[in-house]
Amino acid sequence: MPLHRADSTVPGVEKEGAYVDWNIETQGKRVGYENLTAIDWIFEYTKERQRLRSLLATSSGWSGTVRQLLDNSHVWVVLVITGLMVGLLAAFINIASDWLGDIKTGYCKDTATSTQFYLSKQFCCWGHDELSQCREWTPWRKALKIENLGGAYIVEYIFFVLYATLFAACSAVLVQGYSRYAKQSGIPEIKTMLGGYVMKEFLGGWTLITKSIGVCLSVASGLWLGKEGPLVHLACCCANLAMKPFDSLSNNEARKREVLSAAAASGISVAFGAPVGGVLFSLEQLSYYFPDKIMWQSFVCAMIAAVTLQALNPFHTGKIVLYQVRYTTGWHAFELLPFVILGITGGLFGGLFIQLNMFITRLRRSDIYPLRNRPILEVSIVAALAATINFPNLFMRAQLSELVYYLFAECATIGNNDIFGLCKATVAGSLSMVTLLLTAAGLGTLLAAVTFGLPIPAGIILPSLAIGALYGRALGVIVELIHKHHSNSMLFASCEPDVPCITPGTYAIVGAASALAGTTRMTASIVVIMFELTGALTYVLPIMIAVMLAKWVGDVFGFRSIYDAWIQINEYPYIDNRDDLAVPQVPAASIMTKVEEMTCIDANRAYSVEDLRNLLRTTSFRGFPVLRQRRPSTSSSATAPALRPAQNVLLGYISRTELSYALDHARKIGGSTSPLRSATVMCYFMHSNEQEPVTSIDLRPWMDQTPITLHAASSLQLAVAMFQKLGLRYLLLLEKGSLKGLLTKKDIWWVLNANEVQSSSAQFVPGAGVLRDDPADDLQENDEVEGLLRDES
Amino acid sequence: MPLHRADSTVPGVEKEGAYVDWNIETQGKRVGYENLTAIDWIFEYTKERQRLRSLLATSSGWSGTVRQLLDNSHVWVVLVITGLMVGLLAAFINIASDWLGDIKTGYCKDTATSTQFYLSKQFCCWGHDELSQCREWTPWRKALKIENLGGAYIVEYIFFVLYATLFAACSAVLVQGYSRYAKQSGIPEIKTMLGGYVMKEFLGGWTLITKSIGVCLSVASGLWLGKEGPLVHLACCCANLAMKPFDSLSNNEARKREVLSAAAASGISVAFGAPVGGVLFSLEQLSYYFPDKIMWQSFVCAMIAAVTLQALNPFHTGKIVLYQVRYTTGWHAFELLPFVILGITGGLFGGLFIQLNMFITRLRRSDIYPLRNRPILEVSIVAALAATINFPNLFMRAQLSELVYYLFAECATIGNNDIFGLCKATVAGSLSMVTLLLTAAGLGTLLAAVTFGLPIPAGIILPSLAIGALYGRALGVIVELIHKHHSNSMLFASCEPDVPCITPGTYAIVGAASALAGTTRMTASIVVIMFELTGALTYVLPIMIAVMLAKWVGDVFGFRSIYDAWIQINEYPYIDNRDDLAVPQVPAASIMTKVEEMTCIDANRAYSVEDLRNLLRTTSFRGFPVLRQRRPSTSSSATAPALRPAQNVLLGYISRTELSYALDHARKIGGSTSPLRSATVMCYFMHSNEQEPVTSIDLRPWMDQTPITLHAASSLQLAVAMFQKLGLRYLLLLEKGSLKGLLTKKDIWWVLNANEVQSSSAQFVPGAGVLRDDPADDLQENDEVEGLLRDES
Repeated sequence: MPLHRADSTVPGVEKEGAYVDWNIETQGKRVGYENLTAIDWIFEYTKERQRLRSLLATSSGWSGTVRQLLDNSHVWVVLVITGLMVGLLAAFINIASDWLGDIKTGYCKDTATSTQFYLSKQFCCWGHDELSQCREWTPWRKALKIENLGGAYIVEYIFFVLYATLFAACSAVLVQGYSRYAKQSGIPEIKTMLGGYVMKEFLGGWTLITKSIGVCLSVASGLWLGKEGPLVHLACCCANLAMKPFDSLSNNEARKREVLSAAAASGISVAFGAPVGGVLFSLEQLSYYFPDKIMWQSFVCAMIAAVTLQALNPFHTGKIVLYQVRYTTGWHAFELLPFVILGITGGLFGGLFIQLNMFITRLRRSDIYPLRNRPILEVSIVAALAATINFPNLFMRAQLSELVYYLFAECATIGNNDIFGLCKATVAGSLSMVTLLLTAAGLGTLLAAVTFGLPIPAGIILPSLAIGALYGRALGVIVELIHKHHSNSMLFASCEPDVPCITPGTYAIVGAASALAGTTRMTASIVVIMFELTGALTYVLPIMIAVMLAKWVGDVFGFRSIYDAWIQINEYPYIDNRDDLAVPQVPAASIMTKVEEMTCIDANRAYSVEDLRNLLRTTSFRGFPVLRQRRPSTSSSATAPALRPAQNVLLGYISRTELSYALDHARKIGGSTSPLRSATVMCYFMHSNEQEPVTSIDLRPWMDQTPITLHAASSLQLAVAMFQKLGLRYLLLLEKGSLKGLLTKKDIWWVLNANEVQSSSAQFVPGAGVLRDDPADDLQENDEVEGLLRDES
Repeated sequence: MPLHRADSTVPGVEKEGAYVDWNIETQGKRVGYENLTAIDWIFEYTKERQRLRSLLATSSGWSGTVRQLLDNSHVWVVLVITGLMVGLLAAFINIASDWLGDIKTGYCKDTATSTQFYLSKQFCCWGHDELSQCREWTPWRKALKIENLGGAYIVEYIFFVLYATLFAACSAVLVQGYSRYAKQSGIPEIKTMLGGYVMKEFLGGWTLITKSIGVCLSVASGLWLGKEGPLVHLACCCANLAMKPFDSLSNNEARKREVLSAAAASGISVAFGAPVGGVLFSLEQLSYYFPDKIMWQSFVCAMIAAVTLQALNPFHTGKIVLYQVRYTTGWHAFELLPFVILGITGGLFGGLFIQLNMFITRLRRSDIYPLRNRPILEVSIVAALAATINFPNLFMRAQLSELVYYLFAECATIGNNDIFGLCKATVAGSLSMVTLLLTAAGLGTLLAAVTFGLPIPAGIILPSLAIGALYGRALGVIVELIHKHHSNSMLFASCEPDVPCITPGTYAIVGAASALAGTTRMTASIVVIMFELTGALTYVLPIMIAVMLAKWVGDVFGFRSIYDAWIQINEYPYIDNRDDLAVPQVPAASIMTKVEEMTCIDANRAYSVEDLRNLLRTTSFRGFPVLRQRRPSTSSSATAPALRPAQNVLLGYISRTELSYALDHARKIGGSTSPLRSATVMCYFMHSNEQEPVTSIDLRPWMDQTPITLHAASSLQLAVAMFQKLGLRYLLLLEKGSLKGLLTKKDIWWVLNANEVQSSSAQFVPGAGVLRDDPADDLQENDEVEGLLRDES
């Protein structure tokens, strides 16, 4: 019978209250997550709504309003603190790594009036238009008073290699000693975490300290690595610390992830001086779940971090990134051809780089690798080798950010500080320049592939930019050369006479964008980052074309970005939120663990505590569906066994953690004389007349009584979409009202990675997820996570 | 039994093929959508995957690869064409509306060498540093040779009012005559469409033409309206036209919406010269479903549109928006206080404006409104009234975009062209200026509230910006005045002497941002748009603070933006994709239509075609669940009626459209002698032994055999989340394997809008969605949509 709406409340709700009293409990009580397990998004958001509702219920009047406002303000306080911390941290890292990096080549001499050994070359020579005229900066050959040119070269070479090795080794020692999680960029792990996976300690205080110092040391060592990825990880650490005092955030895994998504944006914001780029990076690369409000929160956090960094002005140039540029010239239609070439090159570079890096990583984890368990030695050897290779090539000797700055710059703005001789005008000079640039790009690729994966803080974004800028600039120089010698050709008709027609710096920036797109497979965020670096619409079109081509060409080698490749090689249980995943075209039922293969709890049976403990002991399933079997004939005599298959009516799902906790809990609350301590106490999973609260345990509150279900014949694609979009941990499959099987997040992960899982445990077991819903046991077989786990002690 | 993975294919799939053969049909065949119905996202994406799979299957070798590449390229071709079209269209609208707008005050006199009546004032006076020296531009008083000052004023007043009324009336005639859909901004409708609702003709060619010309006319009429919203609508029209030749896009409602999301970004991109802002606008305001790939597509489309517009250079200034600015000075800490005031003002303005506009709209739709069915007369009267009010106030007489330009500008850059006298230095001048500015803001608010809702193309973004800039500039002038007279106060200690300390233009931009945030409740997109307009990080922090405060204060008046308020007043069935909707805390079961209240098809029964036709005739349900009743005792004698309630085992769901089509279809295919033409032919919904293909109709292919289900005791919140995230049309609720009821999208919409639905049909009927899953019948009760529907003829 239709009900008429009486007034402004939703009708029929209060009166038809049959369900109301137990709706709160329907998802069951939960114990909390173990380390390295997946979170249940639906449950977390329900918890948050219940918290808000109880806040609303317990508070009234003015004080209530104030309490609610305070509760709302928590997230903003955390974001502002995070932004400030990230800005400060970025300034510290910029200054410290510059100083350490410069120490490899010399030191700042104290003047009569001031001690200034702590100054980097830039600040030491502040005020000098030409760096060559700066007398305070003392190269090691001068400090040691070596006049002989050859001798000076050798001394400086030795100092360079020694310092580089020292810095890298220190960084490795820090990571080994204080926090294993501090190694590498951290982006694959953050991506996995944001995808709904619990990694305790990954964002802890020790990780923050270790990684902050470690990244300065590794950047200073001159290895081919960047601080951009680590900054994202550090930003998440800051947010995690800032959240600690606020229970409303730190106790809810879903809200925690919202704040972390926002914090990640601030990392990229300060790394590139690109707040909008940071937000898009977080959206495109990292975040699993990114509603509108997170966009705004990311934005606030990213902007505050950028403004803080700008206020601190670490470079004393008003810029917040060393390699920010402003081009004064535009581009010509004929340049589209070289830009297209750069885009394709970027895709080739990215695809091959990822394969090379994966090959090296697999080699490194194999038994034949002699340095497998000697991380500090490994890092030292790589650093020494890299420094030895870097020193002779002028481009490779410089710090990467400085290199990128000079490669991006217009010749007009570099002026007299052309330390690389990039603006030389002779043909021979240009040709040797091209050779040098391409050599640097090639060697850089090899070194970066070896470096990304070492147990030190190290990102891959800046090396990609540098390699791209190198080959981009090389092409720019070539085009400039062609123009110089064929300036009357039809091709160059659009060039104005007597002004430089080609700006090789713009080729460098297009090349850098293409290389970054090749390795990370991002699109919009790269274009926005470059747009913010150059500050004009002028070069957006070439950059966009290059990025798009790089992505397309790169995708030919495989759809995974370098981060996804690491997620996959580390076997993190990350399910991408894209809708174009290669899901096999089969029904969900063909992947599920069949009901016959599982241990189910039959609610018609009476279980004693002993029985259930036995169940927990003898099986390794992560959870148990609770069923009531309904036989076709229910006549009381039950003479003949049912011929038609029994109906398994699903009552709910109880997971191992909750079942085990509930049994212990019941034992505890009763006190020592309680009948509940006995192992023969009966447990119930459905309403029963025999049941008495004093002498039996009602397990219904611990059970998920409204699990999400799907028709067993539905396509696997739909099941995957439900896992992705609703953030499920398990999905029960029904057919005509009867339970047919179970799918877990792990099963989905297995199916999606079936073709590529590399580990020795690559034997596909349908229903592996039930047996091992907790992916930790797989991960533990693997060096990678073994290290992470040891770290927690 | 666990299966071992043999090789790289997913195991167990091919062999356990029991399901494989029928999985394709599980969602059932579909007929297509009627106008004004909701689309089924899951079905559309499944369709797309099937298309891709068949493309893959039918093509092989090189030609196959080429076919796939071509198929992939469709969307890019459409986006590039859309971008180019939008850029062109924006240039045309800019030029045409400028010219028409200037005609209200005068015309460009032909010189000896050229005819140039078609030039706007700006181009007519091109080359003159001071506009007052421009002789070619002839005001009407000069044209009519009136020397007397008073007479000249009156003549110009009359011309102004006449032209304004004429332009507005023409615009209204166009809309009435050619496409009703062209009226207003179109953003609420686009939002609803992107949310999964079919509105045929809304993006048609006639709408494009009518709205393009109409928007020039309405902008030129000097009414308080903008072209930004209409440009978004026009961009979607362009995309819709560009998609027509590509079946892969235009035949799939889900993919179509992806492209439209991208196109919408290009509209804002050209409206503000802010491509990134456009993408975020589409993401934050418009789009329902916005995966990463859409972000990149939006980006490409927005950038191409912006670059096209820049190449066309309609203002001949290199800028693509009139009011782009570059500030040379920074801000001081003490200015945060006025910025906070501006933020709060913006929120108050926005909240009150929305209420005022809604009040006027309701009044306009009520019976007491005399102009209810005379749209052209209504528009003419409002335009005449507005022009009469606008003319005496210098600020209001100008075109809105010009006004905003002068309000944003620094005094230093305006120089001698200070037509508004904004940079006057005297105290009296400043005070009268403030009065004038505030009067303009107040009157502007009233006029904009009356205008937004008229049946002409009209956006609300620019009026909001203008009103905000007016009150912002007023506050700026006041602060400047205080500074001038207390420049030695502690407060102004941070000001440098002898240079202007306060830039009133920056107050205007902060005010504009706050007003826009108040009306549209957007955050990140506004900051990015302003960031792109000013091109520097400098003013981002104040703008951010103002936007945030405006949103918070505005939300006190109600959470709906002006667009959402229009969606609600028009009763569009739009379900927001936010996760903080006010969903009642009840189980889904208390809202559902109970199974007893529905007409279900019992698969055990044999239905003849006649029976089913009767069913369709006698009920108005939009679909029918197909059940098999299972009684507790199934013994063949069936002596006693079942005492326990019957189990309603769900077999599927067949919607009215498909059932009716299937019956007609069966009749047709058989030919005139076929036994299927008889009304007594039997129809089956499940496998039956009696069934024969020649003499019976199998309706299973037309049935959704795997409908999405949920436990009836689950919270309504979860049901809403499933509707939002999976894009469902209906959800079947089960309990212990038995069907309990049904929820439709319309039910969810009713519940979410229960407190606020305004129409006469506001009587809540649980299960109204089943009766009227098609919201059209509600909408038709309503003038708004009646107009839209009439339009289709």
